[in-house]
Amino acid sequence: MTSSGQVPKAVIGRMSLYLRELQHVLRDGNETISSVQLGKLLGVTDAQVRKDLAYFGQFGYPGIGYKCIELIEEIRKILGTHKNWPVILVGCGNLGRALMGYKGFGRQSFNIVAAIDVDPKKIGTQIGAITIESLESAEAVVQANQIKLAILTVPAQVAQKVADHLLDAGVTGILNFSPVTLNLPDHASAVGVDLAIKLEQLSFAVVKKLENS
Amino acid sequence: MTSSGQVPKAVIGRMSLYLRELQHVLRDGNETISSVQLGKLLGVTDAQVRKDLAYFGQFGYPGIGYKCIELIEEIRKILGTHKNWPVILVGCGNLGRALMGYKGFGRQSFNIVAAIDVDPKKIGTQIGAITIESLESAEAVVQANQIKLAILTVPAQVAQKVADHLLDAGVTGILNFSPVTLNLPDHASAVGVDLAIKLEQLSFAVVKKLENS
Repeated sequence: MTSSGQVPKAVIGRMSLYLRELQHVLRDGNETISSVQLGKLLGVTDAQVRKDLAYFGQFGYPGIGYKCIELIEEIRKILGTHKNWPVILVGCGNLGRALMGYKGFGRQSFNIVAAIDVDPKKIGTQIGAITIESLESAEAVVQANQIKLAILTVPAQVAQKVADHLLDAGVTGILNFSPVTLNLPDHASAVGVDLAIKLEQLSFAVVKKLENS
Repeated sequence: MTSSGQVPKAVIGRMSLYLRELQHVLRDGNETISSVQLGKLLGVTDAQVRKDLAYFGQFGYPGIGYKCIELIEEIRKILGTHKNWPVILVGCGNLGRALMGYKGFGRQSFNIVAAIDVDPKKIGTQIGAITIESLESAEAVVQANQIKLAILTVPAQVAQKVADHLLDAGVTGILNFSPVTLNLPDHASAVGVDLAIKLEQLSFAVVKKLENS
């Protein structure tokens, strides 16, 4: 890790994308990949690939490129996903339920191990193998499972209150699906999910193709 | 629009983020913003802001910066969201239902106007004001509502087949929540959603803060 500290957010985003592509390439039976090839898969230059990775160290081999298994391991270390993260989900509405069944999390080392809701009708019921618990139990659950990450799928008007509760319990990272910006202490982090951004990328692409046709 | 054509994906992503920030700034009562201020809100340099916008034209005023209302309008035109997009959602499981209630889409000009499922028990039932229809009705629905965009929340193993069906019906853009890469003809576009990437950004931030504490 470089001592300079601040790695641009876009670089972290590309680390995830490099990881996905390397996993595909390896699954397809290829053991090595060049920065040119890896860049092509993401639509960036080989110089960009090398510059991105240089934030974290020196990974390639002259005349060989990157060894896929090795670089996958290194990127997992960079992202912190070389070990498993137990995750608590708070808010068992449709979105919460959908995310509990989302296969993509487990593949990248995130396992939802507990679920919380405030609705007495939901508490005690099961989603898959997980029993929904009350917000009051959150602290005990977080500590028993050494949970650091939470997924927040609660209504916007209670998001901050619930987030505060989770931070008090020991959570330090929140994936926030509520359309509000959370106020967090310095030791904690939040990442917001805005799904409309994806639709905007799509409308841009669709309009472009209509113009060119 | 520049004639060169290819705008990097990351630039399009930042257009969405500029738009969000400009909407906030305007809501807070500010009519103008400098490229330095706008950059700060996104954690990029003012040079980056100017370079990103320069792909699409010349928008600032010397000594004033950007006029928020004007730049919002311009970015909406760039993204294609200055007009409303009717959207069809296919796959009314938990995720599909959650997305039908997702307020963030409407705010950015995307309106889910129709929903499709293959389950006879779901067809004919309502989600909010929308009646779920059969996959066989997709073509008529798409054409009656002049729908170009679809949200695909079906199981991975049927995603390609359903996508083909939608394209035949007249859809040209698919927001794909299934963890598969769709094969599409040249005139169509797809954007995939990988929610684990957001959790990876979060684990990176959490690990960083633990290291520095």
